[in-house]
Amino acid sequence: LNQNLVALPTTIFTLMSELARQHDAINLGQGFPDTEGPQDMVRVAADALLDNRNQYAPLTGLPELRQAVADASLRFQGIEVSPDSEVVITSGATEALAAAFLALIEPGDEIVLMEPLYDTYLPVIRQLGGIPRLVRLEAPDWALPRKALEEAFSARTKAIVLNSPMNPTGKVFNAEELDFIADLVRRYDTYAICDEVYEHLAFGAPHISLMSRADMRGRCLRIGSAGKSFSLTGWKVGYVTAAPELASVVSKAHQNLVFSTAPNLQRAVAFGLNKDSAYFTDLARDMDKKRLILSTGLERAGFRVLPCQGSYFVMADITPFTQGGPQNGMDDVAFSRLLTQQARVTTIPASAFYDPNGQTPPPRNLIRFAFCKREEVLLEAVARIEIWK
Amino acid sequence: LNQNLVALPTTIFTLMSELARQHDAINLGQGFPDTEGPQDMVRVAADALLDNRNQYAPLTGLPELRQAVADASLRFQGIEVSPDSEVVITSGATEALAAAFLALIEPGDEIVLMEPLYDTYLPVIRQLGGIPRLVRLEAPDWALPRKALEEAFSARTKAIVLNSPMNPTGKVFNAEELDFIADLVRRYDTYAICDEVYEHLAFGAPHISLMSRADMRGRCLRIGSAGKSFSLTGWKVGYVTAAPELASVVSKAHQNLVFSTAPNLQRAVAFGLNKDSAYFTDLARDMDKKRLILSTGLERAGFRVLPCQGSYFVMADITPFTQGGPQNGMDDVAFSRLLTQQARVTTIPASAFYDPNGQTPPPRNLIRFAFCKREEVLLEAVARIEIWK
Ligand SMILES: CSCCC(=O)C(=O)O
Ligand SMILES: CSCCC(=O)C(=O)O
Repeated sequence: LNQNLVALPTTIFTLMSELARQHDAINLGQGFPDTEGPQDMVRVAADALLDNRNQYAPLTGLPELRQAVADASLRFQGIEVSPDSEVVITSGATEALAAAFLALIEPGDEIVLMEPLYDTYLPVIRQLGGIPRLVRLEAPDWALPRKALEEAFSARTKAIVLNSPMNPTGKVFNAEELDFIADLVRRYDTYAICDEVYEHLAFGAPHISLMSRADMRGRCLRIGSAGKSFSLTGWKVGYVTAAPELASVVSKAHQNLVFSTAPNLQRAVAFGLNKDSAYFTDLARDMDKKRLILSTGLERAGFRVLPCQGSYFVMADITPFTQGGPQNGMDDVAFSRLLTQQARVTTIPASAFYDPNGQTPPPRNLIRFAFCKREEVLLEAVARIEIWK
Repeated sequence: LNQNLVALPTTIFTLMSELARQHDAINLGQGFPDTEGPQDMVRVAADALLDNRNQYAPLTGLPELRQAVADASLRFQGIEVSPDSEVVITSGATEALAAAFLALIEPGDEIVLMEPLYDTYLPVIRQLGGIPRLVRLEAPDWALPRKALEEAFSARTKAIVLNSPMNPTGKVFNAEELDFIADLVRRYDTYAICDEVYEHLAFGAPHISLMSRADMRGRCLRIGSAGKSFSLTGWKVGYVTAAPELASVVSKAHQNLVFSTAPNLQRAVAFGLNKDSAYFTDLARDMDKKRLILSTGLERAGFRVLPCQGSYFVMADITPFTQGGPQNGMDDVAFSRLLTQQARVTTIPASAFYDPNGQTPPPRNLIRFAFCKREEVLLEAVARIEIWK
C-alpha cells in the first residue's frame, strides 16, 4: 500500500467531530455552518433535480455556472475571465486543489507554502513527488516573513500556495504583502495557487485576489468554494479560474479525478453567484458579528484571542490556562481533548496545521475555534467554558 | 506544467459529444442514458435537500448509504462487508478509481491491465509513478489471453485491474476466467481493483464479482456506481468496498481528493440500493432489449456486430464499409467522424481504448455504440445509417 497514505492520520476534522459526537459537545472544530444556506438556492437545486438533467454535466462544468463564476470574478475582483476557456468547475475546493497540484507538479518540483496550513496541501504535494518548502508565519500577528519567504524561492520553485483569507489564522493578506509575493512569483517565473475559499468572508480588511494584479493574471490558479460562499459545505461545488493554458491542464486533471459534478447543484450555485452584492456583504457582516461574539466571550473566559480578519476561524492562546492550575503544562492537543470531554466544546489544536514531518516543532499553545455557528450556540459554548474553567 | 497531463488529449467522450452537438447527431458515444433514473429516487434527493442536512457528509459517507451498499453487496454477490470499516462513498466511480490507485501505488509498482480499457486508468497510474503492464484481449470474442496475462505478472506487480462487465467490449468474465485470475492474484500476492460499475447490467451471463470468492475477499477493491445502476450518471456517487486495512487507505486518498459527497444524493442512492430486486432485473432486461434492437439494426445496416454480454456498449466491426466503396481504407477515427457528420450518429472509435504510447498499434476496424437510449432513438439512429450508407 502507499506508505505515505498509510502513515497519514485521519484528518483532525473527522477525529474531533467524532469526539464531539461522543461527548455531545458543541462542535467548533470542523468549519461548517449550523444554519443552511439561502433557501431559494436550495429550492433551485431541488427543482433542478426534477426536470430531467441528471446525466453527466460537461467536463468543465455547465455553461451557466461557468458564466456565473466569470461574472462574479469580474464583479468582486475586477478579474475578467472567459467562461469558456478559463473556468473549471470541480467537486469542491478540495478537488480543485488536488487538480491544481496535479496540473502543476512534476516530481522534484518545489512548492512554497506558509504554515500554519490546511491539512490536504502537504500529502497531495508529496504524493505527486513535489517538495514542500515551508515558511512559518508567527502568532499573534502572522506577519509575512519576507526574508524567509524569499529564501524559500529558487530555480526549482514551481508555485506558491497563497491562502487568503487564511485558514486557520484568519489573516487577510494586504496589498503590500501581495506586492512582495507577486514580485517573487514574477522574478522566479512561477505560478501561484490562490486558495480563496473564504473570499466573501473578509472583515474590515478587504480581500484582494493576487490574480487581480495584471502581472499575476496569467500565473494564478484561483480557487473558490460554493460551500463556503453559500453556507452549503456539503454540496462540494468548487471552481478554478486560470489562463486558458493552465485551465486546460486543470480540466485534464479533473477528467481523471472526478470528471464532472452534479448538474442540479451546479445550476443552484449559478443562481447563488448571480445574487445581489447585498447577499455577500450580509454574509460577511453576519459572520463578523459571530466572530465578535465568540472572541469577546473567549477573552472573558480567560483566553488570549488572536486578531482575525476573515474566514470561519479564530485562534486562541491557551497559555493563561496552562501555566499553573489543573491544566498546567498541557499542550494544544491535550487541552482540546479536555475541552471536549469536560467543557463539551470542541476545537482544533493548531499543531494539526503544521507539517508533521517538520524540523521545527509547531507551537503548542494555540487552538482554533470555528465561529460559523448560530449566536446562541456561540454563547452557550462560551458559557460552558466559563462554568468549566 | 505536468507534461503527462499537457500531453493527455481531452477525453474522447467530450470530443465526440461536442462533435455530436455540432452536427445535431444522435449521441451513441458517451455512455449515459437518455431517460432519467427512478423518479422516486429523484424525489428523495429533492426532499433531502429541503430538510437541513446540506453540510459536510462524513468522510467515508453517510451511515445509511454505507449500510445500503453493504446490504446490496450481500444480496447480489453474497459478499458480507462491514458498513463501518469496509465501505467508502466517493464522488463517482472515477474518483473511486483514482482513490484506489492512490491507495495502492508507489512509484515503480506494476499494474496489470487488459486492453481495450477505460481511458482514465492509464494516465492516473502513470502520474503516480506506476508502470502499466498491458495485456490485450482480441476481438471478436475477447477471450482471456491466459499465457500473456501470466507473463504480465511478476514480483513487481501491485495489482490487476479487472473491469467486468467490461467497457468497451461488453465482455462479462465467467467463473473459469475468474479462477485463472484469482490464481495469479494469490500466487503473486497482489491486489485486484474490480471496476464493476456495470454490475447490474449483465445479460445472459451472470455477473460474478471476483471479491465473492473467499480467497479474494481481502485482496479486492470493488467499485460500484450509482450513476450506472440507477441511470443518473450526473450524480457522481460511487462506492468502494474492501477489507478494513484497504478501505482505510482509500478513505485517506478520498480525504485529499474530494473529502465528501453531497448528502442529499447519498440519501437518495441509499433509497435506490434498498429497492426490490425486481428493479435491478428490470434494468438489465430493458437494457438487453435495447442492445438487441441496436445490434439487430446495425447488422442489417451492414456492420459486423460483436457479441455483448453486459455494460452500456456494443462493438461493431466497420470492415464491411471500409473495404472498397467511398470509405475504402478508412480507420475507426475517420469513420466515426464521418458517421457523425454524414449519418448524424455518433460513436466512439475503439482505438481510443488502447494505450496511446503502446508498442502494438490498436485495431482500427472497431467502433463502440452506446445502447442506453430510448428504443425510438436507437431505431432512428439505425434508420439514419441505413439512409446514409
Ligand atoms: C473538509 S473538512 C474541513 C473544513 C475546513 O475547511 C476546516 O475546518 O478547516
Ligand atoms: C465519464 S464520461 C464516460 C462515460 C463512460 O463510462 C463511457 O462512455 O465509457
